[in-house]
Amino acid sequence: MASAQNNKMQLNHLFPIISCLRNYNKQDLNGDIFAGIITAILLIPQGIAYAMLAGLPAQVGLYASIFPAAIYALLGSSRTLSVGPVSIAAIMIASALSAPEVIAFGSPVENAIILAAEGGLILLLMALLRMGGLVNFISHPVLTGFTSGAAILIILSQISHLFGVAQIQCTIDFACYNNAFQLINTYTLGLGFISLFILIFFGSPLTTLLKYLKVKQTLITAISKSAPLLVIIVSTALVTMYQLSELQSVAIVGAIQSGLPDISFSFISNFEQWKALLPSASFIAIIAYVESVAIAKVTANLRNQTINPNQELVALGTANLASAFSGGMSVAGGFSRTMVNYSAGARTQISMLIAVALLCIAVSFFTDQFTLIPKAALAAVILVAITPLIKLKGIITTWKYDKADGMAEVVTLIGVLVLGIEEGIAFGVLITILCYLRRTSHPHIAVVGRIRHSEHFRNIKRHQVETWNNLLLIRIDENISFANISYILNFIEEESFNNTELKHVVLIFSSVSHIDRTAFEALENLIHSLKSKSISLNLAEVKGPVMDKLQQTDFFKHLTPGKVFFQTIEAVEQLKNK
Amino acid sequence: MASAQNNKMQLNHLFPIISCLRNYNKQDLNGDIFAGIITAILLIPQGIAYAMLAGLPAQVGLYASIFPAAIYALLGSSRTLSVGPVSIAAIMIASALSAPEVIAFGSPVENAIILAAEGGLILLLMALLRMGGLVNFISHPVLTGFTSGAAILIILSQISHLFGVAQIQCTIDFACYNNAFQLINTYTLGLGFISLFILIFFGSPLTTLLKYLKVKQTLITAISKSAPLLVIIVSTALVTMYQLSELQSVAIVGAIQSGLPDISFSFISNFEQWKALLPSASFIAIIAYVESVAIAKVTANLRNQTINPNQELVALGTANLASAFSGGMSVAGGFSRTMVNYSAGARTQISMLIAVALLCIAVSFFTDQFTLIPKAALAAVILVAITPLIKLKGIITTWKYDKADGMAEVVTLIGVLVLGIEEGIAFGVLITILCYLRRTSHPHIAVVGRIRHSEHFRNIKRHQVETWNNLLLIRIDENISFANISYILNFIEEESFNNTELKHVVLIFSSVSHIDRTAFEALENLIHSLKSKSISLNLAEVKGPVMDKLQQTDFFKHLTPGKVFFQTIEAVEQLKNK
Repeated sequence: MASAQNNKMQLNHLFPIISCLRNYNKQDLNGDIFAGIITAILLIPQGIAYAMLAGLPAQVGLYASIFPAAIYALLGSSRTLSVGPVSIAAIMIASALSAPEVIAFGSPVENAIILAAEGGLILLLMALLRMGGLVNFISHPVLTGFTSGAAILIILSQISHLFGVAQIQCTIDFACYNNAFQLINTYTLGLGFISLFILIFFGSPLTTLLKYLKVKQTLITAISKSAPLLVIIVSTALVTMYQLSELQSVAIVGAIQSGLPDISFSFISNFEQWKALLPSASFIAIIAYVESVAIAKVTANLRNQTINPNQELVALGTANLASAFSGGMSVAGGFSRTMVNYSAGARTQISMLIAVALLCIAVSFFTDQFTLIPKAALAAVILVAITPLIKLKGIITTWKYDKADGMAEVVTLIGVLVLGIEEGIAFGVLITILCYLRRTSHPHIAVVGRIRHSEHFRNIKRHQVETWNNLLLIRIDENISFANISYILNFIEEESFNNTELKHVVLIFSSVSHIDRTAFEALENLIHSLKSKSISLNLAEVKGPVMDKLQQTDFFKHLTPGKVFFQTIEAVEQLKNK
Repeated sequence: MASAQNNKMQLNHLFPIISCLRNYNKQDLNGDIFAGIITAILLIPQGIAYAMLAGLPAQVGLYASIFPAAIYALLGSSRTLSVGPVSIAAIMIASALSAPEVIAFGSPVENAIILAAEGGLILLLMALLRMGGLVNFISHPVLTGFTSGAAILIILSQISHLFGVAQIQCTIDFACYNNAFQLINTYTLGLGFISLFILIFFGSPLTTLLKYLKVKQTLITAISKSAPLLVIIVSTALVTMYQLSELQSVAIVGAIQSGLPDISFSFISNFEQWKALLPSASFIAIIAYVESVAIAKVTANLRNQTINPNQELVALGTANLASAFSGGMSVAGGFSRTMVNYSAGARTQISMLIAVALLCIAVSFFTDQFTLIPKAALAAVILVAITPLIKLKGIITTWKYDKADGMAEVVTLIGVLVLGIEEGIAFGVLITILCYLRRTSHPHIAVVGRIRHSEHFRNIKRHQVETWNNLLLIRIDENISFANISYILNFIEEESFNNTELKHVVLIFSSVSHIDRTAFEALENLIHSLKSKSISLNLAEVKGPVMDKLQQTDFFKHLTPGKVFFQTIEAVEQLKNK
């Protein structure tokens, strides 16, 4: 029995969806069905558009929206995260596929599939090693800077599709304008602007209007979120009616392979190819994971649910592997889709399973209709989805709050734009770690004194406190390590240098939880150098773990006649008259 | 007048020797003269031996003992540090000079001079940028592991000289023994063992004997420290008397260029050559600086003097430049020489100036006598000087105290032996920083309660304390940053998860001196997620700098109805019944 119970718990742990369904009721189902339909409506244009963004055929994006989404629905710990192709991963894939050493190997599709497979394996390996914590080193400013930078790159990449120009190459003297205008396809541009107009109008203007007309909220959501599909339908209808593709050479999506994806393992072939793609795959996987968890946490917090970071590694890893096996590109949780799914009323991942079922039908029967979708309409869909990700104002807020963080954000943003996506992230992470080390090497230390008639000790620079000439009370506000011990010793030396009356130094260790070996040896030297000046070193408020460690050594033998006091006040009472 | 005063102060600052000489008396002079003679006696064999160790002609080591030592005497902030060629730098130079891309450029001497020049410039640049603190990132365990590893490499490199074998190449089945025995030069081996015997006997055995015979301490010092010179004299005499070099092919130093070094700038030539040597030059300069300051601090502490780290950058940088200009190798403070200088009674750098003067005489008139010095005797001098630097026992002590530091020490040691000197250091520094980041991502956090009838709050796991069901008091013992915020949030979530009575969470910030942007945003999210469960977040004991930062933002607006309490006790009094 106990074992059966155990197995059941393990099953629940591995498939979080099981516990979601325990109290599943009709109301939940209604919410999930509605949300599933709305999300499916968004998934089709996004799947095609993000495949185009990555420089891949449309079906690669559609396939990535089927199996991976289903797998995540079963394994993921978020109830509303919508996993599939996402814009940021798509631009990273585009960048990886355009590297000369990658082009040398096989087709872009094959390379994209390997990227997904490798990314999946990397996430599963991280899950195995419980390395989810590693991603904490991508700080929030770096992530924001990166997202803004990538969004700008995406927009720049879509402008040519929107204007119907093959490529805009500008010189510094704006000579491009002349050429660009000559190259613009007016029909494409017209379709692009119609699409943009619909998308923008269906956003806040229409929502406000419908609210004003007291339309039901669910209906408003349904209408406003179907804008991308409407754009696709209208623009495709225009292309079909006026034969814009044949007569005016408006760029269209073109033939899409019909039917469900085949499961294939043919990509497990070339070791050199896997090796060449490994760095990009790692970056894509880590960013996919970080963004997905961040999005999942947003919606989970709103409903008081929790996200299990390690389970997310398993779910996203498996989803990426599933994408590779079914001929799809790298996947992650998409911000706009997830918010749509959530606000359309999704209660559980059943909504995503419904969306997947609808997508299967579309891929099986309607791919012919997708052929004539103009690329300009897709570019408009991408532009509108991506623009809110550019958060330049945030840089100023961050900068005002913390110069180092602001710098990291700016460096990452510029790095992504100038050096490249992966280089930008790497640079940002490096800057963050260096600033962090620099900060910890200048720890906060305060000379403290007693607030009269109390047992409290505070910084003499900030409070009116009582002090004694023969006593120097120093509170060290950080763990003591190789990184900051020199600074601390210099501080003590400077504070004690010109005080001829000084007899006792008391280090208050209330904030010290760890002393590393370098610092330990330096403290022993400090004891002896103070002794030679007839000054005793004393400790106060030493924490349990630190005390345990020091007791393992002969530190206290060196410390004598200095003592360890439980409270700072005891140190003062005993030493002030000695 | 004020300006003259100012100029004088600046001069004193630039030339610390000036203030040393202000109260210089006859007793000081006596000490300095005696110590100068003893140090000079050591400088000659060491100069020749360390040049040999670096794979350079003897005069390169001797030249490095003249101008650089004099320059340091004028600029250095240590009164007793003896600057010149040192063993660790010598083995690093040997390693740098043997790299294929370096051999391609000019002669070893020319490359060694460039290494010294670049090292000097790097140290001066670091002085200019006040980057002395950078070297703190070479933690003590890394430095010890590195020194032990380098010392083992040095000993291995000297064994062939001691045995008179060109090179010992062993296979795994110990086939080398047969070959090696055939290749051994018995005369060389004999000289080597006589030298080793004298050096070891003049160490602790003779000192103990002389002490027992109540010989004066200064005389004991003089006798025991002259062992290296005696070894050189005896072994050279044996070589001369029995014509060991000609008849038995015992390896000798060979012709040494006579006279004082010429000042030359001819090495400032090839940019590519400078570039190829730059990485090694940086490593040598940084290690030279770190070791020199460590040694200088040891002797300064013993006499209550202070070392100015930035002035040391200036002094050692200029000394290395001076070495390059006068045809010498990279220099640093030598441990054995400095201890000899100190214990022979040196009071100021005048002793080193006297040693330099004696060395000038030796180089001008006695180089012919140096020619016949057998290399085996020099190898013995190096072996005896270097063996105490191998501190394998220290690894166990370090390991017991702190696993991470112990690992860093072992990795550096093995890295130096297996991968190479520079790679070993780089690896050790990397491990240290990674372990450091890992540790700070698991900060010490404690749920605290009140020690009855007091205002003190302590960890509920370590003390008998009073707690309240509606109150969760959490003390965070570290700065909050991107590196540890996830851990902190998880901790709070776990602690509050099953407590249905919980109404207020109080974060005690007594140890928090900084909250970075990532952590700040996460705390804002925490406030809202707790609010949705009708739990208020409160802060207590917030420090001045943190308060200042938070006040710049709208944090406190979000925090409401949560409050900021000056004391934890106030939070408890106000919240426990709410």
